[in-house]
Formats: sequence, structure tokens, C-alpha cells
Amino acid sequence: MDIKKILEEYDLDNLAITTVCSHSSLQIFNGARKEGFYTIGICIGSPPKFYDAFPLGKPDEFFPVKTYQDISNHVKELREKNAIIIPHGSFVEYMGAKEFENLNLPTFGNRQVLEWESDRDKERVWLEGAGLKMPEVITNPKDITKPVIVKYHGAKGGKGFFIAKDYHEFKRKVDESQPYIIQVFVMGTRYYIHYFYSPFTSVGYPLKKGWLQLLSIDRRDETTIDEAHRLGSMAELEKIGIKPTFVVTGNIPMVIRESLLPKAFEMGEKIVNRSQDLFGGIIGPFCLETVVTEKLNFKVFEISARIVAGTNPYISGSPYADLIQVGLSTGQRIAQEIKTAIHKKRLLDIIT
Amino acid sequence: MDIKKILEEYDLDNLAITTVCSHSSLQIFNGARKEGFYTIGICIGSPPKFYDAFPLGKPDEFFPVKTYQDISNHVKELREKNAIIIPHGSFVEYMGAKEFENLNLPTFGNRQVLEWESDRDKERVWLEGAGLKMPEVITNPKDITKPVIVKYHGAKGGKGFFIAKDYHEFKRKVDESQPYIIQVFVMGTRYYIHYFYSPFTSVGYPLKKGWLQLLSIDRRDETTIDEAHRLGSMAELEKIGIKPTFVVTGNIPMVIRESLLPKAFEMGEKIVNRSQDLFGGIIGPFCLETVVTEKLNFKVFEISARIVAGTNPYISGSPYADLIQVGLSTGQRIAQEIKTAIHKKRLLDIIT
Amino acid sequence: MDIKKILEEYDLDNLAITTVCSHSSLQIFNGARKEGFYTIGICIGSPPKFYDAFPLGKPDEFFPVKTYQDISNHVKELREKNAIIIPHGSFVEYMGAKEFENLNLPTFGNRQVLEWESDRDKERVWLEGAGLKMPEVITNPKDITKPVIVKYHGAKGGKGFFIAKDYHEFKRKVDESQPYIIQVFVMGTRYYIHYFYSPFTSVGYPLKKGWLQLLSIDRRDETTIDEAHRLGSMAELEKIGIKPTFVVTGNIPMVIRESLLPKAFEMGEKIVNRSQDLFGGIIGPFCLETVVTEKLNFKVFEISARIVAGTNPYISGSPYADLIQVGLSTGQRIAQEIKTAIHKKRLLDIIT
Repeated sequence: MDIKKILEEYDLDNLAITTVCSHSSLQIFNGARKEGFYTIGICIGSPPKFYDAFPLGKPDEFFPVKTYQDISNHVKELREKNAIIIPHGSFVEYMGAKEFENLNLPTFGNRQVLEWESDRDKERVWLEGAGLKMPEVITNPKDITKPVIVKYHGAKGGKGFFIAKDYHEFKRKVDESQPYIIQVFVMGTRYYIHYFYSPFTSVGYPLKKGWLQLLSIDRRDETTIDEAHRLGSMAELEKIGIKPTFVVTGNIPMVIRESLLPKAFEMGEKIVNRSQDLFGGIIGPFCLETVVTEKLNFKVFEISARIVAGTNPYISGSPYADLIQVGLSTGQRIAQEIKTAIHKKRLLDIIT
Repeated sequence: MDIKKILEEYDLDNLAITTVCSHSSLQIFNGARKEGFYTIGICIGSPPKFYDAFPLGKPDEFFPVKTYQDISNHVKELREKNAIIIPHGSFVEYMGAKEFENLNLPTFGNRQVLEWESDRDKERVWLEGAGLKMPEVITNPKDITKPVIVKYHGAKGGKGFFIAKDYHEFKRKVDESQPYIIQVFVMGTRYYIHYFYSPFTSVGYPLKKGWLQLLSIDRRDETTIDEAHRLGSMAELEKIGIKPTFVVTGNIPMVIRESLLPKAFEMGEKIVNRSQDLFGGIIGPFCLETVVTEKLNFKVFEISARIVAGTNPYISGSPYADLIQVGLSTGQRIAQEIKTAIHKKRLLDIIT
Repeated sequence: MDIKKILEEYDLDNLAITTVCSHSSLQIFNGARKEGFYTIGICIGSPPKFYDAFPLGKPDEFFPVKTYQDISNHVKELREKNAIIIPHGSFVEYMGAKEFENLNLPTFGNRQVLEWESDRDKERVWLEGAGLKMPEVITNPKDITKPVIVKYHGAKGGKGFFIAKDYHEFKRKVDESQPYIIQVFVMGTRYYIHYFYSPFTSVGYPLKKGWLQLLSIDRRDETTIDEAHRLGSMAELEKIGIKPTFVVTGNIPMVIRESLLPKAFEMGEKIVNRSQDLFGGIIGPFCLETVVTEKLNFKVFEISARIVAGTNPYISGSPYADLIQVGLSTGQRIAQEIKTAIHKKRLLDIIT
């Protein structure tokens, strides 16, 4: 795989911002369009009809494939179209991390982040190594003396996750047939912070190398947990056989108190610095999934190393992005970054 | 009632967008103003003073009447002013569905929708006939074996609604003196999806006849249920004599995960198609009140066949509307539709 | 302290909008910038690095001091810079109300409001004297027969607040070593309403003297209470030794149902009128912290007599502000007010 060589054959005046039609694709296409790029929407099967309802979010061209895995069979055609791939959560999840890593197409961001993000142990090495506070892990269930959340490995969208207040509750709820991790449940309010790291756009929080921006913040809305209290408490629900789930269904816009911003930037800075030491560095958008405790400290429970769906409320700007450029979205920011890289002849700094 | 004849006498260059001062009227007037229309605010009693605080949402003219029912006594004057009525929830509810149906004034939308929407049984025929999944109805309370929500007929804004987990709880809570309906309580996150159906604007999801748009999504905020958990669980509250209520007090902006959009459009499509078979078709804005379950399926618990107050957070656009036209509101969309109809000489397609 | 004299020495063509770098300062600087003002950010210690990430919210100049109290030692330099102080919650709280009242610098708003706002008894005299409904206070804990919220005097950000359903729960939870107040817990949905009072801008709800605007509404997001239900009910949490706290961490944008707006304006009107009788009147932004009950009545539990952080989601407008001027923020509204006052030569009407 020689991305440099592929890019050399590209017509840089006619790049095509390309992603799979799902997740945050409306925003990605909309943002690319605002910056004047041609857009390609890879779709699984026929082009989804609903894009017709969103002319400013519709790609210029649909590129149908049979399955996510089938994308790999079409790299030649996509290269002929000067496609730059913008990864998003569903793209990587449904294609498979391995398959995505080996996709022989120029891709925005550093693909090496994948192995550090998709493996819970490596993720912890990265985040804790950076000095971030994560929820404590309990290895022996008998040590559960305070509330914990139990997460099954590879569970999609929070399926099967459960909360237990002690060992007995854990035993009653756990499915031992699946591998799981036990984390201390951190009480607090959740904030999903959307960052953008640039190696060369000099508008931003200055880092050792490069600049950091904070574009927006959201809260994930999860079914059924987020409205379960309308029926009863966790314990009451369990008695009637109902187990709330943690499946993400939407996103709510929010802001955080201003005095927490310095801490938010420090966290972002540490994450980026550590990533540069570990694997050449994270590039572009990433999201820290945090809880703010009663002492106003952040605990980080996960990182997403690309655009998250939580940026979708902010297709025309956010209370933070508007302080950079009115109306700026993460999708548009990505397109700007590519544009700047072309102009500075530094595409290889942000494309792998 | 001959709307065609009334419209023939109208000065189409000087139509007046007219609604009752309540519910979503600021948005309706603001949207009409953006499209260059003259606006009339029917007010019950004296003109509400608060419009002075919102110059871009204030009608050009107030038209005071004594009561909602009194509007019917003023049709002649309103016709002389070329009034086109834009119905909203409070308008129809407080005037009375029958009275509104017989209001001898050109009205945006298809008034025949009223009898299909205001009668729970007919609403179910429509929605289930369209293939949508609604919460199951339980006719015999003794069959309550899982959580249900009990709704009294004609209860305004959710007053008196309650949740029961079994027959005994139902018996303890029910007021047998009122007619009620028992629906299975669907666990999940609520999304109120704001659609717009147009018979002739060709920007949108194409249907058998006409086009469908999705303009925004909100969640209703209901007192006291939505913050009751701050005090205790439903069962704990009951013990101290507190019964949470479901009275709508506000709206929270949200987005849904992009992969649910195809399903959202399919639901809208089915609703429109079925309405065309049943009663000549729904026109303009409507809202499906949904719950997304842990399996990422929609259940629909109600339809509102006109502009809903849930569009009020989006007076200057939404994450969806901005993909059609930056800054577009449902109020403005209504005004655009009327403008287009005048231009195409097809007013009778959208006015009844 | 002679503000009139200080202002006479100011170069009114070169005023500097000045505030402490925290709370809502990004919005204040951004708003001032939109109106063409020079801006100064007083910072405790070194200039916070994170402003670099928000070029449109960064002050033109940082003015470092050692502590909040140290600001008083720099009034001469700040006067030479033509500084107009914009107070916000953190500014007043961390500097100390007394210190702030005596700060010898021209300050936006009426500083006399401080003694009426910071003392719970005087606040109640003001609000109840204005005819607003506040939660009932219980003086003898033995009279607790329904749910109450117990607040410690001077507790920052809701720390230590707790809810008790009866006298026994109160006794179990209370820390008698601190002074406290017991308020009846009002069930309902919370709305924080952001008003702006102007003595001379004639766009607004007309009052006896001056005009009132409503710029936006939010809900405070409080850790750990607002997500505690994910773990269990209050009673269940208490059993495992967890006491939810009420520390503000963020803000969620919302709108209220339109039919509540007349009541919201009446409340604002009464507050302003009463303040004019009591102490010369509140000026500029203030916030009523309300609960809407199931009968659709407002209960007011507190007033903030200056810009609140709840306006931060609305840095580029709100569903209400956009009906006055598209994109207007409270920060910008403050800057406009100062601009108008200069133009009308009435600075002393809004500066104390």
C-alpha cells in the first residue's frame, strides 16, 4: 500500500470527498460542498432515496457496492475518481477495522489509530498514559463493592451493557458466556467533546506540534436507559424483568461551563501528544466521551478517533465552532483541512 | 362552503397569512414575513403585549375576537382581508374540531384529516393501515401483564395519564368515571419527527404523488414526569401520594442517528400514501410521535396533522432543514408552499 | 466612588468591554467584537491558552491579575484603558459581593441589585413583593410533611443540597453545623428564562419605565443529580451511600410552550417594576430560575441579576433572540446597549 504513489497520480484540483452513506455522511457531504469539493457517497446496495430530501447533504455521485467489505474490490475505480476517504464510526465498524486498515485508498486521518482505539487495553494504555483519568477497572467480580457498569467486548452500541451495585447483582445479571469488562460506574453528567487536531492550521490551541480546536459538545441519547425512569427505577424495572439498554439513538446539543474548558483542552492536548509518541499521532476530528463528577473533574470512558455522530446537531455551526468561523461544522472543517493541505502541498501529513 | 369560490374573489397578490396568536404563531408569522406575506394574528381578547418583544414574529395586524368560537362570526371580514388560515394545535383544539372543519375560510392543509386524527380508533386505522407499528392496545384491564400507559379520552396535554405495571396498580390508579385507553408502555427514547408533504415542490423524497421532507426533530418536555426522578422513582412517589403528569411545557432540540432516517422517511411515505387513499391526503406539515426501541425500531404512538410546537426551537433552521435551505423553519416552509401554489396556480391543491 | 466623574474622563469612542475570563466571557467578548468594541480579558494568573482556539471569542488584550481581589488594585490602569466592566456570575462570586460593589470602575448594570440578590431573605422580599410565586419555606423541620429541598447558605453551585421527603429523612441527611434553608420541593420542569431590561431601547415589551426582552431559555445540567437515575432512584442510591449533588456543569437549549410566554413576560415586568421601587431598578440581563407545575404555573426559585451561563448555547442567536435580530446573543445585546447609551448620551442610566 503506497498512498504517496496513489496521491501522485491524483488530480488534486478534482479530489472527491468520499464516504459511506450513513452515520454523519450528510454532514460530511454538506461540509465538502461548502468548500467546493466534489462528493461521492458509497452506498451498500441501491442509493438511499432519502438523500433527495436533503439537496445540500446529497453527494454529487452515488457509488453502489454490495457490502462494506466489497468496497475493497472497487479501489481502482475510486482512485480514478480521485477519491479521498473520510472514515466515520459506521464505516470502520461495519467494514471491519482490519479491512479498513488495509483499504488501498487515500484516507483522511492516521489509520494507525485504529489498533489503539479498537482494543480496550491499548486504548487504556493511550489514555491513562496521557494522564487522563478513566473509570477504574475491576478484574475480580468479587471485588465489586460499589456500582459498576459491565460492558461486553465488541458489543455494538451499548447492547447488553448493565449496571450492578454489588457482586450479587452482578452475578444475577451477567452472561458469563461473553467476555466482558467491569468498570466502576462514575456518577456524573456526560459530555461528548468534539475536538479537531491539525498539524498546520495555525488557528487553535497551540500544541508541541500542531493546533487543537474544540468544535462542539453533545450528549448521546441512549435507548432505553435515558427514559427508563419514566417507568420506574432500575431495581423496580428489574423486578418486572426489564433490563434497560444503552443503544445510541440520537444526540442532544449542549454546552459545558466555561471554567471546564481549560481542563477540556488539557485533556485534548495530552491525548494528541501521547498519540504522537505512540503511533505518529491522531489527525483531524476525535471525541472524548467524558463524565463530569461532583468535584468538577473529568473522567474519560472512551475515545473515538474520527468524526462522531454527536457532531450532527451542528451542521450549521455550534456555540464553539461559531467562535472560529460562523456556521462551521466538523464536516466542513475536514474539507477545509484537506483544502489547506493541498494548498500547502502537505496532503501526506493528513492522509494515510 | 365553497373555498374555490372564495379564493376566486381573493386578491392573490395580497394574501394574508393568518393564525391564532398561540402555539407556534411567532414562527408562522416570522416564516410568512420572510417570504414577504402580510400577516394577521387572531387574538382572543386584546392583542397580547408580548409580541412587541419579538418584532420579527409579530403579525402586521391583530384581529381581536371574543372567543375561539367567535372566529366563525368574522369570516366575512377575514375574507375581505384575503386571509389564509394556518391551523395549529391550539387553534383546532380550542376552537373545536367540528367548528374548525366548518370554518368558512380558506385553510392551509386538508381539513378532512381532522376526523382521522381526532378519533383514536380512526387514527389507528390510518396508521396501522399504513403499516406503522403502534403500541398494542389492551381492552381488558385484567390482561395487563406488562407495563401500560393509560390515557383518558380528550385529556388535554396528557393530564391524568398514568403508567401501571400490572392489573393491581391499574385498579389502584384508574378513574373509572372517565373513558380511557390502555396501551402497552413502549420502552425507548422519544423522537417527534416533523415532516412536510408537498404535492408539487419537487425538492424532497419522491412519493407516488408528491414529495416528502423532514424538517426537524424534537423531544417534548413534560411536567412533572420528566424531572420526577430528581425526587424519587414512580413507586416511591406514589407512596407519598405524588402522581407524575404528562403535560407538555417545552421542547428540546435533537437529532436522530442517521441510519434511522430511511425508516423515518418510509414511515412518512406510508402515512401520506394511506392518507391519499383514505381521505384525499394529508398536506403540509405533520408530526409522528415515536419511540425508538432497543432493537432500533420505531413505534408510533400518535400523529399530529399540522405544525407542532416542537418546531419552535427551529425558527432559524435545524440540522435537517439546513440541508434544504439554510435557516428554513416549518413556518417559512408553509409560506413557501403557498407562494409556489400561487405561482403554479394550484392553490386549491393545498387549501381547503 | 464617583462613576460619573470617571466616565467624564473616558474616551467614549474607545471604550473597552472588560470582564473576567470565565463563565460567559467568550460570549461577552464575541458580542462586543460584533458591535465593534475593543475587549479586555482580566485573567487570574497567566492568560488562559484556550482562547487561542476561539479567535472570535478572544479578547483583544489580556489583563493579568493575581487574584480576583487583586482587581481592585488595578483600577487606575483599567480606567486608563476606558474599561467598562461587565459582571457575570463567577466575577461577582469569586471577587466577593462586597468587594465588587466597591470596585471603583464603571460597571454595566445597577450594582445595588447585589444586596437584594445575594441575601436569600431580601431576594424573597423582592420576588414575593413583586407578586411572584416562590417555593414555600419551612422554618421548623418538624413541619416537613411533603418533599423539601434543603439548601446550605453560601453553598457554591448547589453543593450539599439535598431532597428529603419527610422529617426523618431530613434528620438523617442534614448537616446541622451549617446554616440552611428548607424549601418545599416543587415538582415540575425547570426553565431558566433569560431577560434583558433596557431603559431606552424601544424594541421590547413596554413597561411603566423602559422595555423588556426575552432572549433565550435553557435548562441547567447538574451533576450528579441529572443522570443519577441511570443508577437507581434517590432512595436506592441512599441505601448504598450515594448522595446526588446539584453542581451545574452545563446548559441545554430549550423553548417553552408559546402560551406560557405572556406569564413569563408578566413575571419579568413585575420583577423590574419592583426593583425600581426598591433600589433604582435592575438593568440589562437577568434570569429567573423557574419550575412549571402540572397546572402550567410558574414557581420562581431564584433570580440572577446579570448574564447567566445559560445564555452560552446561544452565542449566534436563539429561537427567541432571532425574532429580534437574527444571530443576537446576550453578550452582543449588552454591547448594543452600551453603544446606544453612548449615542443617546445616557451612559449613566446603565452604568454604575
